[in-house]
Amino acid sequence: MSSVLLSDLATEIIIPVCAVIGIVFSLIQWALVSRVKLTPDRNGSPANSNKNGYNDSLIEEEEGVNEHNVVAKCAEIQNAISEGATSFLLTEYQYVGIFMVVFAILIFLFLGSVEGFSTKSKQCTYNIHSMCKPAIATALFSTIAFVLGAITSVLSGFLGMKIATYANARTTLEARKGVGKAFITAFRSGAVMGFLLAANGLLVLYITINLFKLYYGDDWEGLFEAITGYGLGGSSMALFGRVGGGIYTKAADVGADLVGKVERNIPEDDPRNPAVIADNVGDNVGDIAGMGSDLFGSYAESSCAALVVASISSFGINHEFTAMCYPLLVSSVGILVCLITTLFATDFFEIKAVKDIEPALKNQLIISTVLMTFGIAIVSWIALPSSFTIFNFGQQKVVHNWQLFLCVCVGLWAGLIIGFVTEYYTSNAYTPVQDVADSCRTGAATNVIFGLALGYKSVIIPIFSIAIAIFISFTFAAMYGIAVAALGMLSTIATGLAIDAYGPISDNAGGIAEMAGMSHRIRERTDALDAAGNTTAAIGKGFAIGSAALVSLALFGAFVSRAGIEVVDVLTPKVFIGLIVGAMLPYWFSAMTMKSVGSAALKMVEEVRRQFNTIPGIMEGTAKPDYATCVKISTDASIKEMIPPGALVMLTPLIVGTFFGVETLSGVLAGSLVSGVQVAISASNTGGAWDNAKKYIEAGASEHARTLGPKGSDPHKAAVIGDTIGDPLKDTSGPSLNILIKLMAVESLVFAPFFAAHGGLLFKL
Amino acid sequence: MSSVLLSDLATEIIIPVCAVIGIVFSLIQWALVSRVKLTPDRNGSPANSNKNGYNDSLIEEEEGVNEHNVVAKCAEIQNAISEGATSFLLTEYQYVGIFMVVFAILIFLFLGSVEGFSTKSKQCTYNIHSMCKPAIATALFSTIAFVLGAITSVLSGFLGMKIATYANARTTLEARKGVGKAFITAFRSGAVMGFLLAANGLLVLYITINLFKLYYGDDWEGLFEAITGYGLGGSSMALFGRVGGGIYTKAADVGADLVGKVERNIPEDDPRNPAVIADNVGDNVGDIAGMGSDLFGSYAESSCAALVVASISSFGINHEFTAMCYPLLVSSVGILVCLITTLFATDFFEIKAVKDIEPALKNQLIISTVLMTFGIAIVSWIALPSSFTIFNFGQQKVVHNWQLFLCVCVGLWAGLIIGFVTEYYTSNAYTPVQDVADSCRTGAATNVIFGLALGYKSVIIPIFSIAIAIFISFTFAAMYGIAVAALGMLSTIATGLAIDAYGPISDNAGGIAEMAGMSHRIRERTDALDAAGNTTAAIGKGFAIGSAALVSLALFGAFVSRAGIEVVDVLTPKVFIGLIVGAMLPYWFSAMTMKSVGSAALKMVEEVRRQFNTIPGIMEGTAKPDYATCVKISTDASIKEMIPPGALVMLTPLIVGTFFGVETLSGVLAGSLVSGVQVAISASNTGGAWDNAKKYIEAGASEHARTLGPKGSDPHKAAVIGDTIGDPLKDTSGPSLNILIKLMAVESLVFAPFFAAHGGLLFKL
Repeated sequence: MSSVLLSDLATEIIIPVCAVIGIVFSLIQWALVSRVKLTPDRNGSPANSNKNGYNDSLIEEEEGVNEHNVVAKCAEIQNAISEGATSFLLTEYQYVGIFMVVFAILIFLFLGSVEGFSTKSKQCTYNIHSMCKPAIATALFSTIAFVLGAITSVLSGFLGMKIATYANARTTLEARKGVGKAFITAFRSGAVMGFLLAANGLLVLYITINLFKLYYGDDWEGLFEAITGYGLGGSSMALFGRVGGGIYTKAADVGADLVGKVERNIPEDDPRNPAVIADNVGDNVGDIAGMGSDLFGSYAESSCAALVVASISSFGINHEFTAMCYPLLVSSVGILVCLITTLFATDFFEIKAVKDIEPALKNQLIISTVLMTFGIAIVSWIALPSSFTIFNFGQQKVVHNWQLFLCVCVGLWAGLIIGFVTEYYTSNAYTPVQDVADSCRTGAATNVIFGLALGYKSVIIPIFSIAIAIFISFTFAAMYGIAVAALGMLSTIATGLAIDAYGPISDNAGGIAEMAGMSHRIRERTDALDAAGNTTAAIGKGFAIGSAALVSLALFGAFVSRAGIEVVDVLTPKVFIGLIVGAMLPYWFSAMTMKSVGSAALKMVEEVRRQFNTIPGIMEGTAKPDYATCVKISTDASIKEMIPPGALVMLTPLIVGTFFGVETLSGVLAGSLVSGVQVAISASNTGGAWDNAKKYIEAGASEHARTLGPKGSDPHKAAVIGDTIGDPLKDTSGPSLNILIKLMAVESLVFAPFFAAHGGLLFKL
Repeated sequence: MSSVLLSDLATEIIIPVCAVIGIVFSLIQWALVSRVKLTPDRNGSPANSNKNGYNDSLIEEEEGVNEHNVVAKCAEIQNAISEGATSFLLTEYQYVGIFMVVFAILIFLFLGSVEGFSTKSKQCTYNIHSMCKPAIATALFSTIAFVLGAITSVLSGFLGMKIATYANARTTLEARKGVGKAFITAFRSGAVMGFLLAANGLLVLYITINLFKLYYGDDWEGLFEAITGYGLGGSSMALFGRVGGGIYTKAADVGADLVGKVERNIPEDDPRNPAVIADNVGDNVGDIAGMGSDLFGSYAESSCAALVVASISSFGINHEFTAMCYPLLVSSVGILVCLITTLFATDFFEIKAVKDIEPALKNQLIISTVLMTFGIAIVSWIALPSSFTIFNFGQQKVVHNWQLFLCVCVGLWAGLIIGFVTEYYTSNAYTPVQDVADSCRTGAATNVIFGLALGYKSVIIPIFSIAIAIFISFTFAAMYGIAVAALGMLSTIATGLAIDAYGPISDNAGGIAEMAGMSHRIRERTDALDAAGNTTAAIGKGFAIGSAALVSLALFGAFVSRAGIEVVDVLTPKVFIGLIVGAMLPYWFSAMTMKSVGSAALKMVEEVRRQFNTIPGIMEGTAKPDYATCVKISTDASIKEMIPPGALVMLTPLIVGTFFGVETLSGVLAGSLVSGVQVAISASNTGGAWDNAKKYIEAGASEHARTLGPKGSDPHKAAVIGDTIGDPLKDTSGPSLNILIKLMAVESLVFAPFFAAHGGLLFKL
């Protein structure tokens, strides 16, 4: 075992410095976005050569619309959206807060009971020559880590939402100057969120480890066991964020579309539609806050999984701090790499036309992946000994640093492949979506059949990529390899989040343009941004699910190690029933969430219809609809409906572990993982494809597309039906499944000592 | 080890006698059905007090329709359907025949190569003190068994189709006398198929075993290894039957509906629709021939799985013939039990009104299950020693006869529960389907969302039932327990098939009534039969998939034993990548089949539109459409499109086994099993629910239903879209998945010695 090039002191410095750089960079981006002023010019002059903080004049002036009024109106709408989103999240956090307290107590009691709340030190499990801290300490610190993870997750989601609702109207205003300016504003805002989240997650984790170390000292086994609570906290908040936010956004969206577009024949985001504000709020609480929490959860969990495995490998046993921090160092370098990558989109190149948008976003993925490959090489070279051992279900396996480099890389590149495949299946620049659009000729039924088939088909290559990544990293470095592969996929999270958050911001910007009564040319620009955003949203979901698959496998492995199982044999009844029931859980969960969206949407439809029928002048635009009631319906429905699916996910590991024991629980985790990944990918891509098939017909950019259009034609109506069906698939049930598989795994990991000690009651009887 | 009550001689007699009783009973039913005459009365008198072989006069006379003409027209239509179906099946068999020959050669070569085509006897694998026949003998006899299984399967499908196309017009004619008479005709015809298939399958298997024994003598290990070829033959034919037939039927159905119902606003089965004959042919080749082959395959495979495991357990080692034949004895008793059960529907009770139909069919399930429980008890008591040992992955496990009784029972009763749950989710007598119908108020999108959610939800209880059945039978008697549990579920196959085949026959009867221009009151009666048939079809699919799950697990277990694996550890990269890729296969397969249906339907739509536009007088009914071209389109499309999904299923085990080895193949089998079951159940039930939601609105039997209707209302149109989407899900991709999971398992089992000897090339390099 050779020593490493990077000293422990340097490691101690590098990690927080990178995190701080990320935070500072994010603040700079925010400052740049905030230069777009949302307050009308003080002297109220309708045109000004130096307005909005830029020196170039507007490329296009609004015809017949007073500048002062437009800006004021945008500010007003943004305010309404921001208020709605804030009020929803605060309500959600009240409920989630209660859950957090209850679950924190549960963690403490369950883990404390493992050794009967004894406060005596015990022999370590793996490093049997040393003494470790008592189980009650692990219980206490796990609980603290859980709360910290939960708070960081909530903060990530909330800040993301705040940034997005700060940026949407600014993007609309910038769209008057051209598509390039609007793109930069939306993208910078996405970057604010991406960097803040990545840096914040890293910093809090780093500080927590250092603080816990003050107590744990040399007992790294206990220290990193306790740290796993951080991942559980992050992911459990993400569950409610994704499910609650997902139901919110789609209830509003589906409800608004069904009455507005289908029955009343008014365009999307028309201010006459009472559900329009709720719909725009939804984008921010679902796609932004939910996604932020989700990816933060993945990041926290994969770090925890890697750390807990490392703690019982040679790094932990020999107390090699720098090598131990390898996962954190990879993330630190990731922040720097993403910083450079971002400059390519915002400063090095300029978007001049609509057709530049998608390539620019795609280049972000490629640049960050290529740069990161070098980054990983450097970290692997300086932070790892040339060979070391990794705990592998009972044995220590010898691993070389170049092997670990390959593990991280394979995850990183698998992510890129998944991203490209997702793009191919969901962007309307390629044949799959065009075929789906074409099938609208014969009506909604064929559209749905082709869309479902597309979703199923889109699973193939991502699964092979994940399988290859798993095979390579598993073979080289067992579960530690899987964990760092997941980290590799997530190492460019800041860029991933930036291009992901860019989508809903553009979507909102389009909505604001429509509501503020701006000309259709502005709307066309935001639509172009939004169409690219749909694809990037699908790519983001692809990353999220791909990394979730790796993360949960890593957590699963860590769980198995911690529960003291050495073999998970499918050929035993206990494991097999777990496997088949686990494979069923994604269906149960999806049934719940889809039904919730359906029921909430029906309520929304009734309310919107009621307003159209009872408020005179609403269709003529002379009376204002009652937006607040629609916001309230979405809020109430999502809060109420997120509880049963949440309970399914949170209670399953507890019930299975307690009553059926760790073998069955292993089966459940493996089953839900391999089945959930498929359901999630196909649901996201089907939904994305339907959405873009509709946009393809609407845009009419090709000869073929024009034969299907225009808006209001029969094929277009069929496409709208597909889009509506896809909404809950792509934004509620699909992405929530990531969290299902991750959360069950991390929860099992945290509770593993309890299950190992007291689990399997039913078979003991 | 005690001896058994039943002597070997008695066993030798009982099995063929029961099979012959089944065949005779089926012929009697046929004779009863054939008493309904399809040739018009010789003297041409329009009414006759003793016509159609019954003494009671017609309850209702056709108004204004000449009796002679109606009968002649029914006969003519029946003839066209029968000709179309025969010609399709014969075309299909040509292609399938080529496949059969090629695959037979492959089996011989692969298995012969295991010991380099040596003709020397070798030491037995399990019973190491004896000598066994050479590998080349196993290769040869496996190939013969494969061909026999394939021919029996083809025969089962073909005979089923012949019976169904013989019975459909007769059911229509009987419907004039009342719903009870029509029901009995349809049900008796179903019974002909059910009994013929069950008895035939048993008899051929029994004869094959006895003939092979002439060569093998005391080498039962080799004998029953070779017999597994029978299951492979049965299932590989079923694959093409299900996929080809499924694509055929749904291309025609979807194509006919899209132009006929949606564009031209003409009713279902209207003779003016050029695709109407193809649609009716499809019911017979898809739902009848396909289902027949499928269930025959399950039956053959579960018998083979049980026999092969028994041959290396104490039954085989000690050469206890009666105990060895336990699976066949269970099936024999099943035939007798089903015989009695059938009399309850046809003779003991009489159907007087529409509302009696569903309960009568449900009672069939309950009666057969209750009676069979006693039957199993008797067989277990007289044919099994009170204790014996079963091979359990390397060890011999002691099992008692009452434990095996419980294993069979748990399968039988799990089947009943799955049947009831399926009924609950797909019959429009209960709230789930009514909720789906209600969601049509807000359009097709909510209908689809609710329908998908229903399908996902309907998976929960069946999976728990299967899991419990697996747990109990696995715990008691390892893989032998699973195999006999599957046999238990299939022991009432004759009744299951009878009520299953009843559905498409009634569907056809309705079509014939419509095409022959009979009054709408006749159509109402056949519609009532058909609605019950939709539910029973869903129940049949539930049985098929439930038994497929158990069968493939049993085959998987047998494969693992034969390949010499003792542990399938999820925590090894080889197994895990198999698991995740296996879980993906059902999606890949579904994508192919659904896309095939979609493309074939589009072609059909074009042809139907062309005919409507170019044949003058077609809409007025003065010119006859060109039915044959539509039949040809469906035939060509299904033959062409069945190849890629067929290749996927047939090649996957060969490729994985040869290149990646038996561990990865184990993972693939387990993954596709646990994931495929979910996809199949949800697809079948979603489709069934949409179909019945539409029928619920059309029938307008309740206050609620009437608010949604009548035909042609907006909710009804939305329901038709759902029904069309459901068609490929419930009749093509869903049911084909049973075969995917079974076939890959049985193929792996047959090729296991080859994979064990030469597999895993990629890892060897």
